[in-house]
Amino acid sequence: NLSSAQSLAAFGPSGDYLRFSGLLDLGVGRVINKSAAGVKATVSELHQAGSGGSVLDWVGRENLGGGMYTGFLLETSIQTDTGGIGSLPTGPYFNRTSAVYLGNNWGELALGQVRTPTYSNIVFHDPMFNNGYNGSMKLISPLGTRVNSLYQNINSINYFLPPGAGGGFYGHVQATFPEGQPNQKYFGWNFGYAKGPMDIGVARGTTETTPGNPDYVMTNVGGSYDFGILKLIGFYVNSKYGDASQNVYLAGVTFPIGVNQIKLSYSRGRYSGGALGGASANAAGVQVIHFLSKRVGIYGNFARVNNSGKAAFRLPTPQNTASTLGGSSTGFDAGLRLAF
Amino acid sequence: NLSSAQSLAAFGPSGDYLRFSGLLDLGVGRVINKSAAGVKATVSELHQAGSGGSVLDWVGRENLGGGMYTGFLLETSIQTDTGGIGSLPTGPYFNRTSAVYLGNNWGELALGQVRTPTYSNIVFHDPMFNNGYNGSMKLISPLGTRVNSLYQNINSINYFLPPGAGGGFYGHVQATFPEGQPNQKYFGWNFGYAKGPMDIGVARGTTETTPGNPDYVMTNVGGSYDFGILKLIGFYVNSKYGDASQNVYLAGVTFPIGVNQIKLSYSRGRYSGGALGGASANAAGVQVIHFLSKRVGIYGNFARVNNSGKAAFRLPTPQNTASTLGGSSTGFDAGLRLAF
Amino acid sequence: NLSSAQSLAAFGPSGDYLRFSGLLDLGVGRVINKSAAGVKATVSELHQAGSGGSVLDWVGRENLGGGMYTGFLLETSIQTDTGGIGSLPTGPYFNRTSAVYLGNNWGELALGQVRTPTYSNIVFHDPMFNNGYNGSMKLISPLGTRVNSLYQNINSINYFLPPGAGGGFYGHVQATFPEGQPNQKYFGWNFGYAKGPMDIGVARGTTETTPGNPDYVMTNVGGSYDFGILKLIGFYVNSKYGDASQNVYLAGVTFPIGVNQIKLSYSRGRYSGGALGGASANAAGVQVIHFLSKRVGIYGNFARVNNSGKAAFRLPTPQNTASTLGGSSTGFDAGLRLAF
Repeated sequence: NLSSAQSLAAFGPSGDYLRFSGLLDLGVGRVINKSAAGVKATVSELHQAGSGGSVLDWVGRENLGGGMYTGFLLETSIQTDTGGIGSLPTGPYFNRTSAVYLGNNWGELALGQVRTPTYSNIVFHDPMFNNGYNGSMKLISPLGTRVNSLYQNINSINYFLPPGAGGGFYGHVQATFPEGQPNQKYFGWNFGYAKGPMDIGVARGTTETTPGNPDYVMTNVGGSYDFGILKLIGFYVNSKYGDASQNVYLAGVTFPIGVNQIKLSYSRGRYSGGALGGASANAAGVQVIHFLSKRVGIYGNFARVNNSGKAAFRLPTPQNTASTLGGSSTGFDAGLRLAF
Repeated sequence: NLSSAQSLAAFGPSGDYLRFSGLLDLGVGRVINKSAAGVKATVSELHQAGSGGSVLDWVGRENLGGGMYTGFLLETSIQTDTGGIGSLPTGPYFNRTSAVYLGNNWGELALGQVRTPTYSNIVFHDPMFNNGYNGSMKLISPLGTRVNSLYQNINSINYFLPPGAGGGFYGHVQATFPEGQPNQKYFGWNFGYAKGPMDIGVARGTTETTPGNPDYVMTNVGGSYDFGILKLIGFYVNSKYGDASQNVYLAGVTFPIGVNQIKLSYSRGRYSGGALGGASANAAGVQVIHFLSKRVGIYGNFARVNNSGKAAFRLPTPQNTASTLGGSSTGFDAGLRLAF
Repeated sequence: NLSSAQSLAAFGPSGDYLRFSGLLDLGVGRVINKSAAGVKATVSELHQAGSGGSVLDWVGRENLGGGMYTGFLLETSIQTDTGGIGSLPTGPYFNRTSAVYLGNNWGELALGQVRTPTYSNIVFHDPMFNNGYNGSMKLISPLGTRVNSLYQNINSINYFLPPGAGGGFYGHVQATFPEGQPNQKYFGWNFGYAKGPMDIGVARGTTETTPGNPDYVMTNVGGSYDFGILKLIGFYVNSKYGDASQNVYLAGVTFPIGVNQIKLSYSRGRYSGGALGGASANAAGVQVIHFLSKRVGIYGNFARVNNSGKAAFRLPTPQNTASTLGGSSTGFDAGLRLAF
């Protein structure tokens, strides 16, 4: 069950193990940013995570008897194009997950840095798993806040429902210790049902921002249905910060052709209230993966973002920082991804 | 023989191996600091290393024939609560040990970063192994210096007696290259005898401070005796820096109850001479570990520090920085520790 | 074939594997710098990589059928003397290699951070493999530029000839994406022939410097011939930056005596044109390795650099920064190296 894959039960097998694994992905890409006035800036780049992500994992598990087990998961992103790792030099080395787990048939507890339930419900209902130019998070705004909860939270306590609870339910509840820091106090959850071809989940998370300011609240719904010949997938995200709010929906389809996989996605976001009220943007893209083995593939992406009004979204590349205010961002790439 | 566990001979088995191992520990804690004037500050936190430590180890060994062997040990602390590792961003990645070893029946040479013999003699005679709120180093002061020798030294040359030398003697001599830096030139040693239920050791280390200032000198004695039904353990530490000195003693007891282990410790420190002369503090605490397997346990701590005069010791948490000058620091936690 | 060892095909065996390996090396050394005026500064140090290098490698490979394979190589340097890793805190964690590979009988493609072909042709024709006081790169100047191509390039695309192409040819072509940064756009190649006792290679690389300034261009030739009883080895390097240029040649010999290996090297460099025109330097040294096993050795080095005119080369130690302008730098060390 992908939607709860941040639990140890969902991550790996159930025996005793200690593993080093990872997913490396590098592509050659080109991104053209264009402002409303038509000023263009083009950057070519080598970039990681165009399709499959780019992470290293150290994970272990030990069964304790009586259905009880314990373990840990340490995950970091790796910038394979330049040799960087995690959020160094200023952020942590393990910037994705660093947690210890204790579970039994009643569910699983986790302490540490864990992906937020609100983000899990987005990433697993995005056909691109939020990787590369076509990743869906590029349209989702923190609404001017600096909340740490968009992706993962440090200093968190987590409870996960056991896999297949009640015949297909899944769930994750997370609370954090702010330890005196702003933008870090979070409470959120996701719950869903996944059985056979169907998966549907709902999530909500609230993050305290800075003293005297309102909370940042995200609510989202995601789902997929696999018809065999093709799979429909999508989500709807609402985020609020005081007067400002943003609604983003995504619709996608994925289907196989032989050893190839085709993924299409269309998303649209609109601000209401606040300084950006009325601004909107849409993103569309296609990804083709040609699998060379179960774990290895070559891929290509085409992706485009169109902004209206004061929106200034762009394809996720740190290299092309030229303005896209009321303009567009267009990119394409080709790369290699391998899991080990 | 725990007291020389920084030697490769004491760290692992004697065959050829290459291993990745570690000890992860996360707990939920709460610390209340109170100043002499009664001002209180309370912080709740997720914290690493409440009982078992939080480290990752890469270690290897190769036998060279004729009783000769070589190997390496790379050890770093991990802040599992936030994903940080070592002393990054400003300090080294491997902040505990990074050394190569060459040994035979006459002992072992080590080059690199290695724990100091003075610290070894403390940590192995502390019932809590200097972990968490009850760690014993919280009362031991560098006396205003910035010496690097309280825990481990970089750029060091080390000699270890072979395990079981002369029927139970152990020893470690360490000298460092300051390489032009202040606070880094150290010479120290520990020697001891451990056989059957008894272990007793003595250590002394001298660190050059900044030019024109006196050396920082630490002398300590530690010991334990295991009566089977319970184990007594303790140490005495004297440190000096010019006129200023500090004496700290600790007495502890540990005993099993079924699969649980109970640890009690009481320590007391007093300054003589210098700006803090006459100031004193005591610390007391209890830890209970419930073992779920040989390598996995859940635990709880209660710990308290009381300061008199100008002493301002506190429980070791970076989160609660409120003043404890002449006041107290109280904490409790519960957590999970697992070795792999 | 060592000269193309940055390809995955040359790095390891041809099966499926996932490995952690490394090479650790620590020595005790002493370096005396002397200026033209005779001012001397001596520093003793613990230093890594005196003979065998000091790196950690994570490497994996999977065969895809039909002669096709894929894999990755992540390599970082480790400062075992102090616990540092890579180029942290300011540079990347994996500062040597971070790349994904896709190859077949026609050759190998690599994306990411890879050693430059110009450097490969130097390092593999240096009897000391550019390690320690006797490393050959100490006489090779970037001619005042800040080009990143002296050792390895990030954001690169690479093609390697397959091992043994055409009965012994090897080759590597590399181009980089500058991604908007100066000193990063590089195009270079090496080609050579290695068969039986003979190896000869030529390389050339061009790096764009800062806007409005000329390119930095390096051309080099290297070779070796193994007579069995001894091996002759050497290279010639020419680098140019506008008016300034430098020529460096090296001649070396290595031979075994029982389980010992002796290495001698002499090199000489001279500037033409530019501010340093006419300045010259030579370096000479000897290294003796006594192998304790196939992978473990103890060693000693003696090395000396003599500068004439405005040359200010020195032995590669960060500790002794005293002036060697027109003077000399002399060093010796003894250490332990182990591969795992």
